[in-house]
Amino acid sequence: MKRIGMLTSGGDCQALNAAMRGVAKTLLNSGEKVEIYGFLDGYQGLIYGRFRLLSYDDFSGILTKGGTFLGSSRTPFKTIQVPGPDGVDKVAAMKQTYYKLQLDCLVILGGNGTHKTANLLRTEGLNIVTLPKTIDNDLWGTDMTFGFQSAVDIATAAIDAIHTTAASHGRVFIVEVMGHKVGWLTLNAGIAGGADIILIPEIPYDIKKVAKKIQQRHERGSRFTILAVAEGAISKEDALLSKKEYKKKLENYKYPSVSYEIAEALSKTGGFDVRVTVPGHTQRGGSPCPYDRVFASRLGSEAGNMILRGEYGFMVGYKNREMVKVPLEEVAGKLKMVDPESSIIKEAKMLGISFGD
Amino acid sequence: MKRIGMLTSGGDCQALNAAMRGVAKTLLNSGEKVEIYGFLDGYQGLIYGRFRLLSYDDFSGILTKGGTFLGSSRTPFKTIQVPGPDGVDKVAAMKQTYYKLQLDCLVILGGNGTHKTANLLRTEGLNIVTLPKTIDNDLWGTDMTFGFQSAVDIATAAIDAIHTTAASHGRVFIVEVMGHKVGWLTLNAGIAGGADIILIPEIPYDIKKVAKKIQQRHERGSRFTILAVAEGAISKEDALLSKKEYKKKLENYKYPSVSYEIAEALSKTGGFDVRVTVPGHTQRGGSPCPYDRVFASRLGSEAGNMILRGEYGFMVGYKNREMVKVPLEEVAGKLKMVDPESSIIKEAKMLGISFGD
Amino acid sequence: MKRIGMLTSGGDCQALNAAMRGVAKTLLNSGEKVEIYGFLDGYQGLIYGRFRLLSYDDFSGILTKGGTFLGSSRTPFKTIQVPGPDGVDKVAAMKQTYYKLQLDCLVILGGNGTHKTANLLRTEGLNIVTLPKTIDNDLWGTDMTFGFQSAVDIATAAIDAIHTTAASHGRVFIVEVMGHKVGWLTLNAGIAGGADIILIPEIPYDIKKVAKKIQQRHERGSRFTILAVAEGAISKEDALLSKKEYKKKLENYKYPSVSYEIAEALSKTGGFDVRVTVPGHTQRGGSPCPYDRVFASRLGSEAGNMILRGEYGFMVGYKNREMVKVPLEEVAGKLKMVDPESSIIKEAKMLGISFGD
Amino acid sequence: MKRIGMLTSGGDCQALNAAMRGVAKTLLNSGEKVEIYGFLDGYQGLIYGRFRLLSYDDFSGILTKGGTFLGSSRTPFKTIQVPGPDGVDKVAAMKQTYYKLQLDCLVILGGNGTHKTANLLRTEGLNIVTLPKTIDNDLWGTDMTFGFQSAVDIATAAIDAIHTTAASHGRVFIVEVMGHKVGWLTLNAGIAGGADIILIPEIPYDIKKVAKKIQQRHERGSRFTILAVAEGAISKEDALLSKKEYKKKLENYKYPSVSYEIAEALSKTGGFDVRVTVPGHTQRGGSPCPYDRVFASRLGSEAGNMILRGEYGFMVGYKNREMVKVPLEEVAGKLKMVDPESSIIKEAKMLGISFGD
Repeated sequence: MKRIGMLTSGGDCQALNAAMRGVAKTLLNSGEKVEIYGFLDGYQGLIYGRFRLLSYDDFSGILTKGGTFLGSSRTPFKTIQVPGPDGVDKVAAMKQTYYKLQLDCLVILGGNGTHKTANLLRTEGLNIVTLPKTIDNDLWGTDMTFGFQSAVDIATAAIDAIHTTAASHGRVFIVEVMGHKVGWLTLNAGIAGGADIILIPEIPYDIKKVAKKIQQRHERGSRFTILAVAEGAISKEDALLSKKEYKKKLENYKYPSVSYEIAEALSKTGGFDVRVTVPGHTQRGGSPCPYDRVFASRLGSEAGNMILRGEYGFMVGYKNREMVKVPLEEVAGKLKMVDPESSIIKEAKMLGISFGD
Repeated sequence: MKRIGMLTSGGDCQALNAAMRGVAKTLLNSGEKVEIYGFLDGYQGLIYGRFRLLSYDDFSGILTKGGTFLGSSRTPFKTIQVPGPDGVDKVAAMKQTYYKLQLDCLVILGGNGTHKTANLLRTEGLNIVTLPKTIDNDLWGTDMTFGFQSAVDIATAAIDAIHTTAASHGRVFIVEVMGHKVGWLTLNAGIAGGADIILIPEIPYDIKKVAKKIQQRHERGSRFTILAVAEGAISKEDALLSKKEYKKKLENYKYPSVSYEIAEALSKTGGFDVRVTVPGHTQRGGSPCPYDRVFASRLGSEAGNMILRGEYGFMVGYKNREMVKVPLEEVAGKLKMVDPESSIIKEAKMLGISFGD
Repeated sequence: MKRIGMLTSGGDCQALNAAMRGVAKTLLNSGEKVEIYGFLDGYQGLIYGRFRLLSYDDFSGILTKGGTFLGSSRTPFKTIQVPGPDGVDKVAAMKQTYYKLQLDCLVILGGNGTHKTANLLRTEGLNIVTLPKTIDNDLWGTDMTFGFQSAVDIATAAIDAIHTTAASHGRVFIVEVMGHKVGWLTLNAGIAGGADIILIPEIPYDIKKVAKKIQQRHERGSRFTILAVAEGAISKEDALLSKKEYKKKLENYKYPSVSYEIAEALSKTGGFDVRVTVPGHTQRGGSPCPYDRVFASRLGSEAGNMILRGEYGFMVGYKNREMVKVPLEEVAGKLKMVDPESSIIKEAKMLGISFGD
Repeated sequence: MKRIGMLTSGGDCQALNAAMRGVAKTLLNSGEKVEIYGFLDGYQGLIYGRFRLLSYDDFSGILTKGGTFLGSSRTPFKTIQVPGPDGVDKVAAMKQTYYKLQLDCLVILGGNGTHKTANLLRTEGLNIVTLPKTIDNDLWGTDMTFGFQSAVDIATAAIDAIHTTAASHGRVFIVEVMGHKVGWLTLNAGIAGGADIILIPEIPYDIKKVAKKIQQRHERGSRFTILAVAEGAISKEDALLSKKEYKKKLENYKYPSVSYEIAEALSKTGGFDVRVTVPGHTQRGGSPCPYDRVFASRLGSEAGNMILRGEYGFMVGYKNREMVKVPLEEVAGKLKMVDPESSIIKEAKMLGISFGD
């Protein structure tokens, strides 16, 4: 008999339901007696004891559904360790729920912030297994996260749509792509969408070189230019600032996101008429793409197996086409970034794409 | 022997190529000898004599392509009548190109602004046939414009994607939909996407009633609320302002669009955490949906027929499922708006949708 | 207080759930007290008294779902009037269930066969309101049925996909499109997909003319030809047969559908290498397109209104952009076919499409 | 100065154009002087000297286009070595064209059959670089081929669409998936589409076990069952036959594909009403998915680089997330099959999927 808790935390993304279905079906088909408790709205459900005992039917028909049927919430790691306005000691409350339900293990699906808290709970003595959920693909210890490919598909569709407008009007267009502090999503959607310029956090840009690339395209007869810009893109000058200084600069910025600033800078530098499109939250929504459905199902199934074998303290990862166990202490607090010297960057440059460097 | 000019003007949209293909194939398959000249970048091409003689092959394989292979530009009606910085008398220049090429007729694809200029050229003695192109569906004299249904599809997909995120996080989400000064696009995408609240220019909203609707949903156990907001949505107070006053107010507004203002107002009024998504120009781009491909092909074919019969001075429209000829003087300068008393609005209200009125 | 029964009958299609949601929300939001009973698997549920009392929640989140949450079944009109193997008098059993539950009205969603039975129940004294469901668009009394546009979208996507293969290999391809005995679906998908030849039941084809059209295309340098063929397409010779003779001929036919026969005939007549693709049941499945979601919601809402007003014995139809009430006796047993002399056929021919006539 | 020939051979698939664009842009952006000759319709163009000198513009705007702009043809390896009906020695003719144009290298995009011929040309002394094109993912020496993920997406969409119909009608449905003699495509689309039973060539099925699985599902209250069946699926009995015997059996088979045979067997064994859907050639068509666009672009870019470095005789492959050079003699004539003991099969079984073994 196993008693399992399950929760999804952080920004939602595609294939969360597929992953949970993978865990649950593997456990419930195993022959062993298993009870699965679903905590509502992420760590909040664990803190405040809000949960449901889940049955096989809860996991039927959810493979293709976006979002998470358990709900999610962002609970910053910084605040999880300080008491809430209600005076609740959150870590203690989570442990209390865990022990009260006599759980054997907690399955946690989340991204970077979530993994910090998951690792904290591990050090507090709880059995934890995690799954790598994020459209940003920035989790350490795994080549791929689920949600990523679905987000690439949506961001690429946005660039595709903008292509026809840009070509018809002979305009410069920025499509701002999500990805938090890393460039994976922008890099892949940018190449897939045929962007001419790709700006990512890992390669700070020189606005003059960006403007020059646009100029060159126009001189060679291209009527339009498309930029795929990561929401975390940063200029060479800003990259020299301290974290604190840069944060302050962003806060004083008049536009809702960095792309508008780049558009303004390009307008000043090169006199271009630049339009900005921000697909925003649509990139995390909707039905997962087939790749993510398969990938999340497989990860979930492996997590189920690990639980059956009593292996705890790991994230299920994917390295060199193999499912692997990654110790939580190795995952927490690290960021997997795009290497500016990697082959995909070199290949993109050979295709004629400028990174503004 | 017929000599035809063709141009696309204003913001691009889906099925422009399909419509031009419809005109051209009908003319070129008719047995009559026809020459088709394509003017580049809208009226600019007519003014400055930039054109290409087009062949059958130019219209092959373009049925499914977004944008316009002739290029387009926005040339405001106000400026078309005043000389450019280069001193060019634009109307005279357009007439000169027309007569120099000995054109029998000019086929113009465009929306409201475009039709004002088209009608002006008609009064100047040119033979004109127009096609109703706009994602806004706001052209007088036709039940439907091409581009509209494709834009509905894209805006609906955005609402669908936001749905899973809103449901997972229990949030209030605004999806801002295009449509210029009318609500057709928002109304249809809002119903199709299952929006709880729809705000359109034709029904000024009371922010307190909007907040109350959200409140009621939360009280009844709905974790989230989705608003489909037209880019031209207006509050009851602002609707009382003069055009000039309202324009000034918008110019002084700190955010890039009206949805952010509504989000802020809802935050102040009801304490809601409201997120805004703006699909923007993606709504005009990409491959036309099958509905628009058929519709634009049919309109184009009818235009071709009218030219073969020497019937000029009309827009090809669609009324009560029949192709009709609408005199240009009736189209120019008018706006087709959503009637707040129409059956679709009543039905939407019966479905439980609030318009904030 | 109103007690309403609801069932979906015949082949499923997109937007059945959207339509039922429209009926239910309108009734449940009306202020009047309403009970809705959902019968399972079409008339079977009514005959055998299998039903569920439905709540508001049953209709939440189903707008975008394909299929029907009540289940459906094909119960041929011919057999509904003869006792089953279990000796059950089906019509009597349906009436018994209706009266036992003290229903005020039965809402029936279905196509042609379904409407015959619905009309029979009306003549037996039951209050009936119906909704026009079919991908075939062949219901008399309405310009449009829901499911149709979604099926057009899917069939068009199939033709689009085949286009690239046909062009790459220089082949003749048949895409067989559903539509039962009428050509609406094939006609629209064929125009939208850029088919070169469209064969529909309403215009019997001459195989020699079809072969000649292919030949002409090849002579003019077109490497490939795409035929959109209705599953009910018929040759000029077969159109002369009696119904009985033709049925017998079809039964003795060695291939699963008519397209293979046409492929073989083209191979014999013109020596062409013809490939056949049959998207089949995929045309009825998946999420309804935005057009169908809006349309089905509106029809459902009007049905709800009619029930609130106590107007029974009608199908809710759509004529000249207005919602209309069509007496059931006018609908039952009739077929709405494509008029070979209609403007859409003429336009398609002007675009260069051959109908093999 | 480099003179490069390029051709696409075998069944077309998605991202062929993207891959060729990758090769060409890398070569043309390299600074070195390069001429690229495109041979039409695969090896036919090489044999009969049909080609075009290609410019940068030929590779613009083709990233998202399905098919191959050079055309393709199936030229079986067996016949390439015997003279044609015109007496042409094909191998000699290909060499002659190669030397006449003074080519430095031939870039060949194709699948298994294509690679046999490519390797033959290599042994004849030509410089060859190949790219792994196939929706079957069955090429030896690479973890992935381009076209595969796009085909998975389409096959999954078909299963998704069938899901709603199967659920509504309580039916057993077979979706027949391509993949030639291997199960990669069916396995991935089957898992992604939530198929209950997956039949692939690598795991011969026992029809009784398949029937039993359906029976069990019905007993547990599932109204429907979906089978994803590979076009190359084979029963345990047939797997014991010699190749020759099996081929003969298939030829005498009355239905167009194996799924109909399985449907009939299930009908006989378990009395099930089984429907068959065959998406067919749609699986190779249409715009490549973003994954394939990125992947094919990268492979193409690496091929371009290899040519610049003068490295010939290789296929560009992808192993453990690295671009690799695979000697052509290792690729030719081998098949990469699904390992029945691999982790993905085990995971699928834990999810409850039956393989009929």
